[in-house]
Amino acid sequence: MTNQEIKTIQSLHKKKFRKELNRFIIEGRKIIEQSLENQPERIQQVYALESEQNWLTETALPVTYISARELEKITVLQHPQGVLAICTMETSQAENTTFQLALDTIQDPGNMGTILRLASWFGVDEVLLSIDCVDIYNPKVVQASMGAIFTVPTRYVDLEKELSAANKPIYGALLEGENVYTASLKKECILLMGNEGNGISPALQQFISDPISIPKFGKGESLNVAMASGILLSEICR
Amino acid sequence: MTNQEIKTIQSLHKKKFRKELNRFIIEGRKIIEQSLENQPERIQQVYALESEQNWLTETALPVTYISARELEKITVLQHPQGVLAICTMETSQAENTTFQLALDTIQDPGNMGTILRLASWFGVDEVLLSIDCVDIYNPKVVQASMGAIFTVPTRYVDLEKELSAANKPIYGALLEGENVYTASLKKECILLMGNEGNGISPALQQFISDPISIPKFGKGESLNVAMASGILLSEICR
Repeated sequence: MTNQEIKTIQSLHKKKFRKELNRFIIEGRKIIEQSLENQPERIQQVYALESEQNWLTETALPVTYISARELEKITVLQHPQGVLAICTMETSQAENTTFQLALDTIQDPGNMGTILRLASWFGVDEVLLSIDCVDIYNPKVVQASMGAIFTVPTRYVDLEKELSAANKPIYGALLEGENVYTASLKKECILLMGNEGNGISPALQQFISDPISIPKFGKGESLNVAMASGILLSEICR
Repeated sequence: MTNQEIKTIQSLHKKKFRKELNRFIIEGRKIIEQSLENQPERIQQVYALESEQNWLTETALPVTYISARELEKITVLQHPQGVLAICTMETSQAENTTFQLALDTIQDPGNMGTILRLASWFGVDEVLLSIDCVDIYNPKVVQASMGAIFTVPTRYVDLEKELSAANKPIYGALLEGENVYTASLKKECILLMGNEGNGISPALQQFISDPISIPKFGKGESLNVAMASGILLSEICR
């Protein structure tokens, strides 16, 4: 690899340069395979150790084989997985917007990735993200999403505008909400989830048509936002 | 703090010494408060920055105020939270064992902590851990559990022996299991969850009386074991 190549890839660790270059990094065979299956055209270039050659030669991907030392320089992972790819950032348009998940100020990359993975699993048609959510191309989000970034359409929006224009139920997790296990839930909806520490912001709470909550059966103070999202999506889909 | 004190606390970062000294570390106000609420007698000693004095003086806890530099030396966190406590390791006996969660070789500390937090929330009476599960007193487990370690009885056991002796339904998440949304589930049960990569080990699968599975509504390859636990516990409790 040339020094320039290394520098360019390193710059993609930062949001500013991802935006400028319209590229982001994915790492590991699993996520690359997810991308290949869903949006192969987005993979621009693969960098891999020789040890990955077996499966890579069966793909049509452009691969540069590099040394472990070079990989060390460009990886975003603590334990690099032997293969890394540069992808383009264009987001896929939602084909329909029946079942939407709206995220208000989700800031932890691990939570965001987990929620995108859930959205993919439960067949959410589109994820709406408030402007101050963490960047979904943040490497930690990408890794935690397990490639869901290639299967779920996402859109950064003015959530206030978006929710005020909605003409379907807006479910929001609020402490005093209706028991989610007895509430009658439709899949044509927007499920609104709030920030890790502060919940759904007051400016957005007014748009909730159906407040719901997950009853506690034991002890413990709370469920984290990713877990709550999983249980609510599961309830909406079941 | 004396050098000896610092060394002793540092040694608790390792399982071997936790076992030897029968002590483990908890950090942050939230977890200490959880402990105070549930098993205050287990807190042996608190180390805190002066900035924590306000709330600590309202407790009866033995506190040594230390410098930020001292805290740096004993903390297990990347971003220390200003207060750390040493607790005893005795596990609480389960008062009843109606609703049990059995964990087979859960190895990721974050997953283990998250699952304990879920067990607490959903009122699991006892968590059975296979011998090769990660140590629940591992600092990363303790942090991820958000104090659930003080509210959920846990026991390391020979799972094979334990499951073979059970006389109630044993639910296990298997790919070919019955749709969890239509299965009729009782709370008098053992829910068996398997390893992150390999699932439930073949030696234990034979004990599953009711295989269940979470249907996929969209794309994505899988749910992680903590998320699957959350959804299954939610289904059992609802």
